[in-house]
Amino acid sequence: MGKPVELRCVLCGAHYKPGEVEYTCPKCGLDGTLDVLYDYRQARADMTARALAERPLSLWRYSEILPVSNPDFIPPLSVGWTPLYECSSAAREYGVGMLWVKDDGRNPTGSLKDRASAVGVARALELGRRTIACASTGNAASSLSGFAAVGGLKSFIFVPEKAPAAKVAQLLVYGAAVILVKGDYADAFSLATAAIEKYGWYNRNCAINPYLVEGKKTCALEIAEQTGWDLPDRIFISVGDGCCIGSLYKGFSDLLAMGMIPGIPKITGVQAEGARPIFEAFRTGADRVSFGPADTVADSISVGAPRNWAKALRAVRNTDGDMVSVSDEEILSAIPELARKTGVFGEPAGAAAFAGFRKMAGNGQLGKDERVAIVVTGNGLKDIESARKSVGAPIVSEPEIESFSEQLERSGM
Amino acid sequence: MGKPVELRCVLCGAHYKPGEVEYTCPKCGLDGTLDVLYDYRQARADMTARALAERPLSLWRYSEILPVSNPDFIPPLSVGWTPLYECSSAAREYGVGMLWVKDDGRNPTGSLKDRASAVGVARALELGRRTIACASTGNAASSLSGFAAVGGLKSFIFVPEKAPAAKVAQLLVYGAAVILVKGDYADAFSLATAAIEKYGWYNRNCAINPYLVEGKKTCALEIAEQTGWDLPDRIFISVGDGCCIGSLYKGFSDLLAMGMIPGIPKITGVQAEGARPIFEAFRTGADRVSFGPADTVADSISVGAPRNWAKALRAVRNTDGDMVSVSDEEILSAIPELARKTGVFGEPAGAAAFAGFRKMAGNGQLGKDERVAIVVTGNGLKDIESARKSVGAPIVSEPEIESFSEQLERSGM
Repeated sequence: MGKPVELRCVLCGAHYKPGEVEYTCPKCGLDGTLDVLYDYRQARADMTARALAERPLSLWRYSEILPVSNPDFIPPLSVGWTPLYECSSAAREYGVGMLWVKDDGRNPTGSLKDRASAVGVARALELGRRTIACASTGNAASSLSGFAAVGGLKSFIFVPEKAPAAKVAQLLVYGAAVILVKGDYADAFSLATAAIEKYGWYNRNCAINPYLVEGKKTCALEIAEQTGWDLPDRIFISVGDGCCIGSLYKGFSDLLAMGMIPGIPKITGVQAEGARPIFEAFRTGADRVSFGPADTVADSISVGAPRNWAKALRAVRNTDGDMVSVSDEEILSAIPELARKTGVFGEPAGAAAFAGFRKMAGNGQLGKDERVAIVVTGNGLKDIESARKSVGAPIVSEPEIESFSEQLERSGM
Repeated sequence: MGKPVELRCVLCGAHYKPGEVEYTCPKCGLDGTLDVLYDYRQARADMTARALAERPLSLWRYSEILPVSNPDFIPPLSVGWTPLYECSSAAREYGVGMLWVKDDGRNPTGSLKDRASAVGVARALELGRRTIACASTGNAASSLSGFAAVGGLKSFIFVPEKAPAAKVAQLLVYGAAVILVKGDYADAFSLATAAIEKYGWYNRNCAINPYLVEGKKTCALEIAEQTGWDLPDRIFISVGDGCCIGSLYKGFSDLLAMGMIPGIPKITGVQAEGARPIFEAFRTGADRVSFGPADTVADSISVGAPRNWAKALRAVRNTDGDMVSVSDEEILSAIPELARKTGVFGEPAGAAAFAGFRKMAGNGQLGKDERVAIVVTGNGLKDIESARKSVGAPIVSEPEIESFSEQLERSGM
């Protein structure tokens, strides 16, 4: 199994020994998120194509570059190795060389966040922790509650008072202790941070805990392996707090360090118009991200204060990538179009990546030979209400065949 | 690929050549559902363990005993080979030799029905049909709409006027033509039948079209392979119209005919107290099933007139199995218990199988060495409202750590 050899600050480059620092860089504070680094020469020697061929189809197949040293701590839920679909007719339609869709909504609780929670729970168990906590109303919360349940950990999840009851229900089903915090998301986050510090719980916040990005990066590793190591030229992914896009970069960087790929695809982030601080920073060439408002139908990326902005900007800038922003209308219309053309039903934040691709393709910003992948980060069943807004009305018919036939002719179907 | 050699009526035993009859037995009418049979000697010669080891992990790996002769017609959505979890601590707790949970909610549209729709769409394409139709508001409808979309088929789905808007939304997202029929489910079914006949559409009704059971049976084939051909002694599955339980039997029967297993596990059906006509027929030893009311929280098994009753009764009787019925309260309380103990979040009909297991274990009806499997047929995200009813309320806290600490102490967590 993997053994991190160094933690390195994304901002100042300071490096630390594993165990010396737990979460972020002491010099840079919360902004100084860390990279977990391995002995890549050794990893390359062990993680051969032949070795991979014999391993189970889950994210744990990349054990040499995962921060879990004992397989006993791996929670028993099948996670990762989600389908990567080759959508050649959609590629032709949009005028690109190839289109792949990675359906990460097929993970156990329905989102890419399961990759992080799986590694987070394994690591908490390895460190001997009994309790794990986070602030979230969304996919991070549901995946934490699921993996904590099977890992035998107690989980505390702090959500704002007005969190949708349906989302809270899934957490309670898995047995999480759910705390409705009087106030907004920032209040929930502050209380979670204070409680985690006071009680010494393990922190499952992907923007603070660098080991969680290690789980998410397996999405990139799978794309590399599933395309036969012949990588796409560009990858679209939606961006909220910046962890998912940052982890794509980290995954490909690891493979580059191991000499397994010749370069990194152009990582292209998609934000909603109503919550696009990273888009703005990229466009203006800013060194830092200024926090702003957050108002979009895509709840999973409705983030005005992205805490992992440094990794997000690095991902886009270091790969000659791009940032694109899409309206709520563009996000909603992407849901049925993605479903009909690829069979993948994504939640709004998942379909947003497709909306970004469609927009750039429509604007002639993609090369006709460009091979493109899209990561759909969450399952459409998570937000049926938004899906409803994306489609028209059904046909209404009397129960007689004559009535139906008339309707059918009239509709021109 | 597979080539059916015979269709045989479950009731009268009459046999037909493939192509001679399309749906049910002409002598027995709608009750006379058919078995699709293969050249099992040839299948055994080709479907070796060595051959299986090299095949993709999807239901199509069992090609010799699937009714699709051309791989070009296989719809490009990754279906089947869902996780089978070994839950040894839960097994100890309930006093049985082993407990496995098969999570079929991990299929592309979230239910076991995807297995049937995948084969149904492939078969429609092979027959040169352009349109496929069914009456359903539930999992069959959503899976048909998804597979028809990627298969390039037009789909017509007839639903009763009062179908939940959320369920209808998923169908529209995939581009199905949805017809809201003024009336109840029986009206929708009648109109669908009339329209299918009038327009010559392909009929995706698992109780009428014997080829759909062939898709569903792969759940049994996977259980056999995933347990290393050392089968469970008993399998629990929820029962609505009888197709899923009938298909488990068909899958194991095929393996028995091929000499790959020594016998069939005791197939044990679970019905809701408010919709249990097959339970009643089994208890009273009746030859036929009398239709009755249907009123249960588990919408996927809320069936008063099960059209595949003959295959359901045969599955239970021929395997020395059993039928058990559970109340809505037992179903709802099974949702969080199953999720917490196994990590599998099931919809009510999925959790019902676990409720039946728990009830029989509690009543001392299971042997202490008995090795038991449970099939969870649908994803919990499909019915969040029922999940809400199954759990308590969250803790409410002011956003200050002192307030939270007080709450925490008071709750005794």
